[in-house]
Amino acid sequence: MALFNPKVFLTLTEGKLEGTEIKQSYKYLNALAGVFKNETARAEMDQDALIYEVQAYMPVEEGKSGGLFFGNSTIYPGKVDQEYFMTRGHFHSNFDTAEYYWGVKGEGYLILMDENRKIWAEKMTPGSVHYIPGKVAHRVANTGSEPLVFNACWPSDAGHDYESIAEHGFSARLLEVDGEPKLVEE
Amino acid sequence: MALFNPKVFLTLTEGKLEGTEIKQSYKYLNALAGVFKNETARAEMDQDALIYEVQAYMPVEEGKSGGLFFGNSTIYPGKVDQEYFMTRGHFHSNFDTAEYYWGVKGEGYLILMDENRKIWAEKMTPGSVHYIPGKVAHRVANTGSEPLVFNACWPSDAGHDYESIAEHGFSARLLEVDGEPKLVEE
Repeated sequence: MALFNPKVFLTLTEGKLEGTEIKQSYKYLNALAGVFKNETARAEMDQDALIYEVQAYMPVEEGKSGGLFFGNSTIYPGKVDQEYFMTRGHFHSNFDTAEYYWGVKGEGYLILMDENRKIWAEKMTPGSVHYIPGKVAHRVANTGSEPLVFNACWPSDAGHDYESIAEHGFSARLLEVDGEPKLVEE
Repeated sequence: MALFNPKVFLTLTEGKLEGTEIKQSYKYLNALAGVFKNETARAEMDQDALIYEVQAYMPVEEGKSGGLFFGNSTIYPGKVDQEYFMTRGHFHSNFDTAEYYWGVKGEGYLILMDENRKIWAEKMTPGSVHYIPGKVAHRVANTGSEPLVFNACWPSDAGHDYESIAEHGFSARLLEVDGEPKLVEE
């Protein structure tokens, strides 16, 4: 009976996934129109700047219930005016599904907003573990000077609802105020 | 608006969870009667020997659908006769739910058996990532000379069905044969 080698590897201190089944996507500044508070400043920056990238191991079909996906995200350091580089953020389409994020390198904040638009943030550092409950929108901002890297695990039927964030945004933004990150109400 | 520190930390290269909400459990040899092939040999060994221990971060109630749990397991090195120290193994009670294991320290095998008792194993090493599909029983054996440490993420409604394994066992055992691990049919 067969002993197999694994098909996927994770570099534990880099967060990187390796294997032929890993999907990779890249988000450049030109794809983030309207996401940051100061759209004029964003439009004047280098549109080809890589803001974040995502790796995903999706061994079952998206939408299947009971399955799980595994991911790795890297957010590069930088700001649009006062606002830290960050992900677009999303609720899960399957509204009451959770997710784990855990920090691997760099520093930043996980910004969380519930369905009543109550908002808070948790500091991400190497080894920090974050449970994102169902019904809570989530986005990550890099507040450091190095890439912020984290891993993630989420249900294969969670889905991504980017539209409601694109329409209504988060109720606060993580801005640099007097040299420190601060959640500032919209 | 509030910026919080995380409540749970993971030591990335040790796999250890730290935080007040972490549950810890220990499995000693005296609790593993009937699990190994050579029960006579097991009964003659030190019954207080710690075989494995498990940490779990369970931020929602067990049984809730859509939630996730995060774990850490350590299996100590050793054998009962030819058979490597291993976990009891289980199906999920909510049969079609998946799980991730990823190796952090040491070496061993993840032993997988589907509902038709087809069995195989995947090598666990630091950084190996293993997707355990739904309907597949899983147990881990330490084939090395150091503790085998891995992390895990699984749905909060997966549950554990230990009974069917206690009754029917796995269809093969991981034994040391000529100094090498080999899956030997029952």
